[in-house]
Amino acid sequence: MTAQELEAAIRQVGAERYHDKHPFHRLLHGGKLHKGQVQAWALNRYCYQSAVPRKDAALMSRVHDRELRREWVHRILDHDGADGEEGGIERWLVLTDALGLERAYVISMQGALPATRFAVEAYVNFVRKRTLLEAVASSLTELFAPSIHRERIAGMLENYDFIGEHAMQYFRRRLDQADRDSEFALDYVKRHATTPEAQASVVDAVRFKCSVLWAQLDALHHAYVSPGLIPPGAFTPGAP
Amino acid sequence: MTAQELEAAIRQVGAERYHDKHPFHRLLHGGKLHKGQVQAWALNRYCYQSAVPRKDAALMSRVHDRELRREWVHRILDHDGADGEEGGIERWLVLTDALGLERAYVISMQGALPATRFAVEAYVNFVRKRTLLEAVASSLTELFAPSIHRERIAGMLENYDFIGEHAMQYFRRRLDQADRDSEFALDYVKRHATTPEAQASVVDAVRFKCSVLWAQLDALHHAYVSPGLIPPGAFTPGAP
Repeated sequence: MTAQELEAAIRQVGAERYHDKHPFHRLLHGGKLHKGQVQAWALNRYCYQSAVPRKDAALMSRVHDRELRREWVHRILDHDGADGEEGGIERWLVLTDALGLERAYVISMQGALPATRFAVEAYVNFVRKRTLLEAVASSLTELFAPSIHRERIAGMLENYDFIGEHAMQYFRRRLDQADRDSEFALDYVKRHATTPEAQASVVDAVRFKCSVLWAQLDALHHAYVSPGLIPPGAFTPGAP
Repeated sequence: MTAQELEAAIRQVGAERYHDKHPFHRLLHGGKLHKGQVQAWALNRYCYQSAVPRKDAALMSRVHDRELRREWVHRILDHDGADGEEGGIERWLVLTDALGLERAYVISMQGALPATRFAVEAYVNFVRKRTLLEAVASSLTELFAPSIHRERIAGMLENYDFIGEHAMQYFRRRLDQADRDSEFALDYVKRHATTPEAQASVVDAVRFKCSVLWAQLDALHHAYVSPGLIPPGAFTPGAP
């Protein structure tokens, strides 16, 4: 494949497999969930958010090129925050605050679905163990993120009276960050995936990452929508 | 042990095993080396400097506590540099520049001793695989660094006409950074090593790290001082 064909193959994976196609997201953005279901989504998604800096540190721990590390460390700073800047995880907690969830409970992840945590750790381990090229490629779902974030901001603000502008700041901020990050990573894989094997591994890494995201929504849908079978110990809307 | 006794045990390891006691350092600081030997030291030590951010990223990839990551990321920024700040690795290359070494050759590590690279990677792997407590503890040789840096700055400036103030900026900057970092890490291990087993693992981690540093000087001494047996392919002073 040429670099352009590789990019097209990556975008095709997104068109077929990115979690914007999942029924749970249509329910979420269309105002079809009750508050308890939105709470379940937000507290489960916290597991993913809070693992992202570990994933990025795992990637950096394998990088011998200082320039690549200097670029990648921005992602850790974006999520964890830096001096005088709160960071994306804090902004996610603003959302869970707004939804009326206790911070300590959210951060403890005690109410998260086991399948959420398994999917998230599968992602961290993928980045630890696969090639650096695959690790970089697995971040490329960010190519598809801005449109879902725009849809989410608009849909949730319009459809839920318990969601205000303040709660959406995580997504507003990611609109810019995801563009910058995904452009860098896309350029990296186009420059470094120069054999058919390497190109196939890149496309597979994007497929893998789509599965990580999709599996989290499957678990939410099963537990909180249909059939609504909440695993023992997991968050139960309205429970004391 | 109380926290104070643990600190004393850590400091005792430094008193017995830190590489300021190695004969190579006495030669280096006392002006007893010729320029080629100082070059060999600087280009081998580059391997260690350039691995430090990978080591710190490996540590961060295991940290679930955001506050600890926010503290630790400073080390990566200190070494790799950040926007508008050159970082410690760049400052090390200023030293190798001043010694007349080609940057591309230094960065390639082609002239470094195999034993140097093995010791450095042993350190990265230790931090990847041991407990987080041991990983943090292995940074504690920084407790002993400021005095060796002060001795090095004074000794090298006085004793070598090929070393000027500009070349010493790495060490000047580390004087402050190492103090801040080691105070944080010491406080961390004192708070977290609360069982005899954990305390023993902390002291062993400091011993291990002293060995990583000592082994690098042993290799330099063997190759470039006595008996002066340079391994095939390693840097040879004065060679074209």
